[in-house]
Amino acid sequence: MTAQAVTAPSAPPAPTVPADVYAEVQHFYARQMRHLDAGEAEIWAGTFTEDGSFKPPSLPEPVRGRPALAEGARQAAAHLAAAGETHRHWVGMLTVTPADDGSLIAESQVTIIAVAQGGPARLHLVCACRDVLVAEDGELLVRERVVTRDDRP
Amino acid sequence: MTAQAVTAPSAPPAPTVPADVYAEVQHFYARQMRHLDAGEAEIWAGTFTEDGSFKPPSLPEPVRGRPALAEGARQAAAHLAAAGETHRHWVGMLTVTPADDGSLIAESQVTIIAVAQGGPARLHLVCACRDVLVAEDGELLVRERVVTRDDRP
Amino acid sequence: MTAQAVTAPSAPPAPTVPADVYAEVQHFYARQMRHLDAGEAEIWAGTFTEDGSFKPPSLPEPVRGRPALAEGARQAAAHLAAAGETHRHWVGMLTVTPADDGSLIAESQVTIIAVAQGGPARLHLVCACRDVLVAEDGELLVRERVVTRDDRP
Repeated sequence: MTAQAVTAPSAPPAPTVPADVYAEVQHFYARQMRHLDAGEAEIWAGTFTEDGSFKPPSLPEPVRGRPALAEGARQAAAHLAAAGETHRHWVGMLTVTPADDGSLIAESQVTIIAVAQGGPARLHLVCACRDVLVAEDGELLVRERVVTRDDRP
Repeated sequence: MTAQAVTAPSAPPAPTVPADVYAEVQHFYARQMRHLDAGEAEIWAGTFTEDGSFKPPSLPEPVRGRPALAEGARQAAAHLAAAGETHRHWVGMLTVTPADDGSLIAESQVTIIAVAQGGPARLHLVCACRDVLVAEDGELLVRERVVTRDDRP
Repeated sequence: MTAQAVTAPSAPPAPTVPADVYAEVQHFYARQMRHLDAGEAEIWAGTFTEDGSFKPPSLPEPVRGRPALAEGARQAAAHLAAAGETHRHWVGMLTVTPADDGSLIAESQVTIIAVAQGGPARLHLVCACRDVLVAEDGELLVRERVVTRDDRP
């Protein structure tokens, strides 16, 4: 069987970032989620731009700016500590496409695994994450994040 | 401790595709599974070659050709909608090796997470996926897919 | 909104390996875990250096050297076979950073999914894995592995 020139019915050929940018974005998420899961609220907030926004599924309006982001992460960490649980955010099925203004659109699935002391691990949530990433001083930062949950309309 | 020249007992040094091809295949799967999970049956079928085949664990013979592939995806989507569930296919542990005829052999684990409206998320299945991928007009397509389930002999 | 030059409060700019090295490490893990999950104990042990060490969460001291590593994998495979289960190791959230001596520090989350014959699949464990990888004759090998469990202090 040889490959034939056919026309795919409808999938538009999406532009894809070069491999080095893709690898950099993968590293970015691994580090960012590690900070979040370790309860390092300020460091995590620092992975957003100064006026970066984060629209979680639980709020009607986005949280904006590093102080508010850090405060949200601190509250979430305190809530988990009280429950005796650790969360692990897994980012997968990631696509990164360049936007006209030089930013990157990163779309992924995020699975959250909850681990209680003494076990067992438990599948907590699956979310869809859409980020606008920008590079500042050679470092990637989130300018805008919108997260939606699979179990809610 | 310095690295010494030793001979690994049996692991053959498998050829690995360049990073840009690997990143392209990762994007391919993220987009293909997104179409499948969104119920976009025709677009999903268009990610196979015109005579592409898909051997799922549930059937004795492969499904062949885009119209049959799209019909199968439509039925699966209807079945899920009736059950009030969403599926998320996660591709991981991916290797891509070049074949002599210019195609790519992509082998991965695929975890399917089922999410009911209102939650919780649930681990549904783990499959092994072996794809033969070809490039047509600069776009990757599946020429042959064989999926096996871990919970069946 | 334009990107502004801001200083992230505390995240140090971690050096990241080039994309081709990152892709090679991803392939390395996919193949290594495939060998482990298939019960190929000797081949798996051969993915460590001859004096490679592996500190699992269950032991106070690391296992050292390929014969001891292979023996541990054989025992684990026999234990699983007796239980009628298959394990699938998923490596994710991977960062790879170069060390001064030419080795690579690879840090990841590893999720273990247990699959019983007849199903269902079950989330077994989440671990953190820190590897020191070295290249010998062009092939990556683990020189040192330390694995910690999320559900234990």
